Amino acid sequence: MSDSKHKVAAIGLGSMGYGIAQSALRGGHEVWGLDINVEQMQLFVGEGGESAVLSNVVDQLDTVIVAVLNATQTEDVLFGANGIVPKLRAGAAVLSCATVPPEFAKEMAKRCAEFDVLYLDAPISGGSLKAANGALSIMAAGTLEAFSALRPVLDSIAETVFELGDTAGAGSAMKAVNQLLAGVHIATMAEAMTFGMTQGVTPDKFIDVISKCAGTSWMLENRAPHIAAGNYTPHSSVNIWPKDLGIVLDIAKNASFSAPITAAAMQQFVAASGMGLGAEDDAAVAKVYARNAGLTLPGQDEKGGA
Amino acid sequence: MSDSKHKVAAIGLGSMGYGIAQSALRGGHEVWGLDINVEQMQLFVGEGGESAVLSNVVDQLDTVIVAVLNATQTEDVLFGANGIVPKLRAGAAVLSCATVPPEFAKEMAKRCAEFDVLYLDAPISGGSLKAANGALSIMAAGTLEAFSALRPVLDSIAETVFELGDTAGAGSAMKAVNQLLAGVHIATMAEAMTFGMTQGVTPDKFIDVISKCAGTSWMLENRAPHIAAGNYTPHSSVNIWPKDLGIVLDIAKNASFSAPITAAAMQQFVAASGMGLGAEDDAAVAKVYARNAGLTLPGQDEKGGA
Repeated sequence: MSDSKHKVAAIGLGSMGYGIAQSALRGGHEVWGLDINVEQMQLFVGEGGESAVLSNVVDQLDTVIVAVLNATQTEDVLFGANGIVPKLRAGAAVLSCATVPPEFAKEMAKRCAEFDVLYLDAPISGGSLKAANGALSIMAAGTLEAFSALRPVLDSIAETVFELGDTAGAGSAMKAVNQLLAGVHIATMAEAMTFGMTQGVTPDKFIDVISKCAGTSWMLENRAPHIAAGNYTPHSSVNIWPKDLGIVLDIAKNASFSAPITAAAMQQFVAASGMGLGAEDDAAVAKVYARNAGLTLPGQDEKGGA
Repeated sequence: MSDSKHKVAAIGLGSMGYGIAQSALRGGHEVWGLDINVEQMQLFVGEGGESAVLSNVVDQLDTVIVAVLNATQTEDVLFGANGIVPKLRAGAAVLSCATVPPEFAKEMAKRCAEFDVLYLDAPISGGSLKAANGALSIMAAGTLEAFSALRPVLDSIAETVFELGDTAGAGSAMKAVNQLLAGVHIATMAEAMTFGMTQGVTPDKFIDVISKCAGTSWMLENRAPHIAAGNYTPHSSVNIWPKDLGIVLDIAKNASFSAPITAAAMQQFVAASGMGLGAEDDAAVAKVYARNAGLTLPGQDEKGGA
C-alpha cells in the first residue's frame, strides 16, 4: 500500500479544510497543514500533521488540497507570488475544493497543465462535521489522470465522489446548481417559518408537520431546528451565501440567464449580513424576517435582539 | 359498525374531490357525489355512488365534504343561494378541504355554528393519486366535536391527520405555510435545472446528483423527472400556484409580512400561465426559464414549443 500513502499539502485549515486535513491524516497520508492562521497550523501538528518546513519537500508532494474561501484565494495559492504549482513535480495533482465559477476552474486546469500538474475541479458539499469524518460529497470533474492520481486522497476524505466528466468546470457547475437550491431553500424555510408565526404556527409545530409534507427540503429539516432552539452557533455561516449566491448570479448573468428567485434569496442574506449576523449560522436569515415583521424568535428577547 | 357508516355528500368531483369521494365509498359510507360537471356525477354513480336525489335526504346527512377550488366556491356551496348548511340537521359536520385564508375558515366555522353544524378546517395535501388511495395528509383544526363527528370519514380518506388545535383557521394557516414552500420549491427546481443546462448540466445528471445533495427537496424529487421526461401531464397544474401563492401573499400582506421569495416564485407561475401553460403540470414553469434563456427542454422542438 506504499503507493497509496501520499505526501499531501492541505492549504486552508478553516472549518472545512481542517476536517479534510484530519481525514487525510486518518487515511494514512503524510499531511502538511497550511493556513494564514498559525494557531490552526500548530493545532494540526498536534494531531499528527507534519512539522517539517514544507519548502524542503514541496517538490516531493503528490497532492495539494486547496480548501480556501474563493477563486481569488485559490488563484493566489496556486499561482500567486508564492504560488505552489510552479514548485511541484510533474504529475503532482491539485484538488481544488472552493466554490468557484466553472470558467475559473477551466482556466486553473489549463494553467496547471502548463506545469504538467494535474487539476481536479472538486467543490465539496456536506458541512464541517462530514469534512472531519471523511464523509464529504465531492462534485468532481477532470482528466482520468487527475482522478487516478487523487484517488487515495479522495478515498480518505469523501463518502461520495460524483464523477461529472473529464473537463474541469463541470464540478463547479454542479456545485453552483446545488448552492442555488441550498441557499434558496434556507431563506425560504426562514420565510415560511416566520410567515407561519404570524398565523399562530409555532416553530416546533412547523417542523413537526412540514417535515412530513410536500413542502419539506433537506435544508429545512437541517436548519429549521436551529431557529426553533434559538441556537445560531455557525455550522455554515450567513456570510457563505452572499458569496456563493453571488457566484451563481454572476454565472447566470454571463449566460443571460434570469434567476429571480435566487436574486430574492440573495437579498435576504445580504440583509442578514447588514444586520451584523454574518458570522452566525445561516439560519439567522430568519432574523431579517422577524425584524421586518415585528416577531420574536425563540431565544430572542422581547426587543428582538439576539 | 353502523355508527361509523355515514351519509356523506361529496361536493366537488375534480381531481382531488373525486378521489376523496371514491375513498369515502371504499370506507363503506353512502356517498352522494355532486359537481357542476354532470358527467363526473354519472361516473361516480357508476362506481357505487348514491343516485337518489340529494334534496330528499339532505336533512339526514352526517357529513358534507367540500372539495372545491377556493374560498368563493366554498362559501357558495355552504351559504349561497342554494347553500347546504341551512338544510342540514343539528350535529351534521362539514369537512372543508379547499385552500383558503385562515380568517375565512374562522368565519365559516362561526356561521356553521349558528346552524348547529360542526366545521372542520381541513385543507388537504398529497395530490390526486393519494386522494384516490385514501392516503391524503389533512391539516385539520376544529372543535373536539367536529373531529369526533368526522372521524369515520377522515379514517377513510386520510393516511395522516395533523390535529392542529381546536380553532378553525389553524389548518388553513399550516396549509398556507406548506404551499409557500411547495410552490417556491417547484419554481426553484425549475430555475436551478435550467440554470444548470446553461452550464452543461443535463436534466438527468441534475436529478442523479442533486437528489443526493443538500440542495434537494420533496418537490424537486417529485417534479424534476417530469421535465427530464418532457412529460407535462398535469398531476397538479400550473394554475394552482397563482391561486395558492396569491392566498399566501394576501395573508402575508394583511399581516404586514414581507415575503420576497414567495413573490418572485409567484411571478414565474403567472408568467407560465401567461404563456398558455396553465393547464399543464406545474413543472412546466421550467418553460418560462427555458424561453427566457433560449434553452430547449427535453421533448421540446428546437423552437422551444411544447
